Amino acid sequence: MASRKPVCLVIGAGAGIGGHTAIRFAAGGYHAVLARRSDEDSLARLINRIEGDGGTATGTLLNAADDGAIEELVAQVEHDIGPIECALYNLGAQIGNRKLHDTPHKTFELGWRLGCFGVYRLAHAMFPAMVERAKSGRHSTLLVTSATSAMRGNAGQHSHAAAMGGRRMLCQTLNAEFGPQGIHVAHIVVDGAVDAPDTLGKLLGDKYEAFKAAKGEEGVIDPAELAETYWHLAQQPRNCWTHEIDVRPWSDVAWWNDNPNPQIDGKGKSFAGPKS
Amino acid sequence: MASRKPVCLVIGAGAGIGGHTAIRFAAGGYHAVLARRSDEDSLARLINRIEGDGGTATGTLLNAADDGAIEELVAQVEHDIGPIECALYNLGAQIGNRKLHDTPHKTFELGWRLGCFGVYRLAHAMFPAMVERAKSGRHSTLLVTSATSAMRGNAGQHSHAAAMGGRRMLCQTLNAEFGPQGIHVAHIVVDGAVDAPDTLGKLLGDKYEAFKAAKGEEGVIDPAELAETYWHLAQQPRNCWTHEIDVRPWSDVAWWNDNPNPQIDGKGKSFAGPKS
Amino acid sequence: MASRKPVCLVIGAGAGIGGHTAIRFAAGGYHAVLARRSDEDSLARLINRIEGDGGTATGTLLNAADDGAIEELVAQVEHDIGPIECALYNLGAQIGNRKLHDTPHKTFELGWRLGCFGVYRLAHAMFPAMVERAKSGRHSTLLVTSATSAMRGNAGQHSHAAAMGGRRMLCQTLNAEFGPQGIHVAHIVVDGAVDAPDTLGKLLGDKYEAFKAAKGEEGVIDPAELAETYWHLAQQPRNCWTHEIDVRPWSDVAWWNDNPNPQIDGKGKSFAGPKS
Amino acid sequence: MASRKPVCLVIGAGAGIGGHTAIRFAAGGYHAVLARRSDEDSLARLINRIEGDGGTATGTLLNAADDGAIEELVAQVEHDIGPIECALYNLGAQIGNRKLHDTPHKTFELGWRLGCFGVYRLAHAMFPAMVERAKSGRHSTLLVTSATSAMRGNAGQHSHAAAMGGRRMLCQTLNAEFGPQGIHVAHIVVDGAVDAPDTLGKLLGDKYEAFKAAKGEEGVIDPAELAETYWHLAQQPRNCWTHEIDVRPWSDVAWWNDNPNPQIDGKGKSFAGPKS
Repeated sequence: MASRKPVCLVIGAGAGIGGHTAIRFAAGGYHAVLARRSDEDSLARLINRIEGDGGTATGTLLNAADDGAIEELVAQVEHDIGPIECALYNLGAQIGNRKLHDTPHKTFELGWRLGCFGVYRLAHAMFPAMVERAKSGRHSTLLVTSATSAMRGNAGQHSHAAAMGGRRMLCQTLNAEFGPQGIHVAHIVVDGAVDAPDTLGKLLGDKYEAFKAAKGEEGVIDPAELAETYWHLAQQPRNCWTHEIDVRPWSDVAWWNDNPNPQIDGKGKSFAGPKS
Repeated sequence: MASRKPVCLVIGAGAGIGGHTAIRFAAGGYHAVLARRSDEDSLARLINRIEGDGGTATGTLLNAADDGAIEELVAQVEHDIGPIECALYNLGAQIGNRKLHDTPHKTFELGWRLGCFGVYRLAHAMFPAMVERAKSGRHSTLLVTSATSAMRGNAGQHSHAAAMGGRRMLCQTLNAEFGPQGIHVAHIVVDGAVDAPDTLGKLLGDKYEAFKAAKGEEGVIDPAELAETYWHLAQQPRNCWTHEIDVRPWSDVAWWNDNPNPQIDGKGKSFAGPKS
Repeated sequence: MASRKPVCLVIGAGAGIGGHTAIRFAAGGYHAVLARRSDEDSLARLINRIEGDGGTATGTLLNAADDGAIEELVAQVEHDIGPIECALYNLGAQIGNRKLHDTPHKTFELGWRLGCFGVYRLAHAMFPAMVERAKSGRHSTLLVTSATSAMRGNAGQHSHAAAMGGRRMLCQTLNAEFGPQGIHVAHIVVDGAVDAPDTLGKLLGDKYEAFKAAKGEEGVIDPAELAETYWHLAQQPRNCWTHEIDVRPWSDVAWWNDNPNPQIDGKGKSFAGPKS
Repeated sequence: MASRKPVCLVIGAGAGIGGHTAIRFAAGGYHAVLARRSDEDSLARLINRIEGDGGTATGTLLNAADDGAIEELVAQVEHDIGPIECALYNLGAQIGNRKLHDTPHKTFELGWRLGCFGVYRLAHAMFPAMVERAKSGRHSTLLVTSATSAMRGNAGQHSHAAAMGGRRMLCQTLNAEFGPQGIHVAHIVVDGAVDAPDTLGKLLGDKYEAFKAAKGEEGVIDPAELAETYWHLAQQPRNCWTHEIDVRPWSDVAWWNDNPNPQIDGKGKSFAGPKS
């Protein structure tokens, strides 16, 4: 690691948004540091791909819920590899759709540990060095992948929405304190299905291909394409920073909408007349 | 009109929210002034009902879109009847669900005239006297009935959402300027079907009863019940004023939600997994 | 406790919103159960006041962050006292204004335990019996006191905003699952200072009276008055339930506004021209 | 105009966001069509600059509030120049900070004509051809510059907020109907001062340089930099479209925040304790 490139640290570096953001930043001149909970083989393949493209990358397995894990990783990267100029917090807290009484206390808490506390821990560990570097003109970015549940709670999303709602407000507090100190915090509301074999793919199993086919042409977010938006955000100059942005496929209904062609059918929200 | 009761002026006083708010305020000691565009017979019945209950009321037909109509009504009420201590702006701008190209320029403009400009005109005409009275401790209230479309645009709602979105932001500007001068502005987001024979009833015609039956027990807002909330808002003391409140039937899905029991069906928002 | 009145359970029953809501519901025919973390004398005084007014009340000290504490209280009240028909979750997570690096991990976590996890725990423990009773037509209400930080994060509010943002989204998930099962969940955004001797009073100490005087006439929320709004929400019939409502003093600036009389002064948001 | 490049139509093409977006799209291979209300010389200079950089552009003076003006321009461009693949609606409705009674009816209406109705008219005129082209795979984009007032109303912003609030909801209705038909609608919330000599510069006059200096390093949005974000949005593939994005300088306070270092000073929102 002679070069001391700026580092792009990705927490949650699977085959979806995390991995493709790493690939994009490596192509743009960053050294990518990839952390994911399991699957050393996939991690190795991702690093190989980045190196095959002429980039550099390092990987580690990490259970972000473990005490000290995020903190040690940040310290180690800063000491051994290089300055973290961009970090992507890409861990979800998704446990599927569960009723309240199918959501045990431990599950609810784990959602918060991964969905909200981890963002705080990463910022807490990483921002002091970033603030120091900003004083000499090297500005840094924290990208946070977020979800529809950061914007509204829905049945079955107790753990997820509580975690993501906290995450969104936390990103706003971080932005308010650290934006003027030179750290760009961006909260990205991913309001659609992502073509992510490690998460959505595993969740759906052999229904995954049928699901994607049913969504139609360009109906699922391509994480390689989305990574261009992540890259763009991290390149915005200080005079025009974005704090919040949404993304979804063209054919998807935005979270604030329901059926775009409502009928008068007495089923509540889809009734066109009065609920409008 | 010897008594000089405080006046509750209702613009849009049909058989739904407007009429029942008038009834409630008349029962609470206000003189109700009822304005609606047409149907003199209904207006007379409403006045008779209020008087039969021991209250007092006056009515007039009013096309709120006409130049000067709102302004003249306000001046006349203040001069001839009594001080307007509460006004309810209850006109919608609903033209049904229409695609963009079924929404002519004139229709789009009319939506704005009734949905947004009318609120500005009423405030412009009515607030100076209210500000004066507040200086001697008599505070006033402007209640504005609003709709789901004030919170989010949906397909088919071009005219309505543009009008209601403007209405909501206007209520916020009025609150910011006039709240500290003693005028309570409250924006009520009615996020469900109201049992309103004059509007929803006419829109649905002979399907109206079937619609209400399909909504189930207490599945449609009872405007007489909702009027209690309007009354409560107007009685809040200055130290704890509400600016925005939502209401919907228990069985309705809130505007920010879709199907509460989503399936993995590839139909976008109802997919439980990633869009959460 | 022969009468088996319906119970109003207040978690966070100090001398502010919690205590006054207990008083109001006791006056309205509920048996009030008061839980607060400390100060047995204040608790006794509150019970005495309610009993002196002809009502009934029971009190207990409770550390809501303790494992099992909320769950045991709910079970005991339901078993020994009566059916909880209304509960108020009134605990904050306020630790004052602290920079990120003055907010230790334990503090951030405690904010979540009191601000968000406690609401989940209360609902988890209490809703099954409420759902059962709703089947025979006895509907229940969960009132949740919330704060400006549920709507937006600000510098210094890392722990509080993360907790309150989670709380708000959780209230939406609970509403989505349990509204149609007959439980009314209401999220009350208290966007102003409350005249609460136990919290704000202790925080400000001998500056408390000067603070209130500086806010001017009716410039601080009177919790006895606000309790009327809590009462109103709990009395709304099922066809017109409110899920979210805001309150603030007339003279306060709403959270989405800044200085209402901005100057062209180069200080960012208060610049009238372009940031509008 | 032999080449039939795709056209980028800019309505509101001054020396700020509009002009720089035109420059950026011309550099990217679009033919820029520039419309502004007045100042033919500035228009000519902008075209010369684009042509000097090797691009192509056409300009016209346009009063967007005139009946038929937007419609004729769209028809003429489509017929004479080429297919409009991207349009930027960049007209504001800013009349400065005015109290309600300094905002005459005509001014309020003009705000709506420029701020909201113009967006409807542009979409109404332009979308049919865009929908047709999308059927053969050529997708189009409507970019709409928006402002803080689209998100919240503030004192003095009656006309502006009513117009911009309507604009935002309209963009959502357009997105809901036309997104699935292949038209990308993006609503850009410019939440900070832009270095725009034609608008902000003229408004501030000889205080303009002092204003910019007071904002500090990179404290005012550079429209040439912001144009990169506009360009990025228009290049997003259909599987990951952004509908809403905010931008502001790093040193600016976001619209949902006030003073990031509040004091206990009894001045309402800046009080750190309870209003949090």
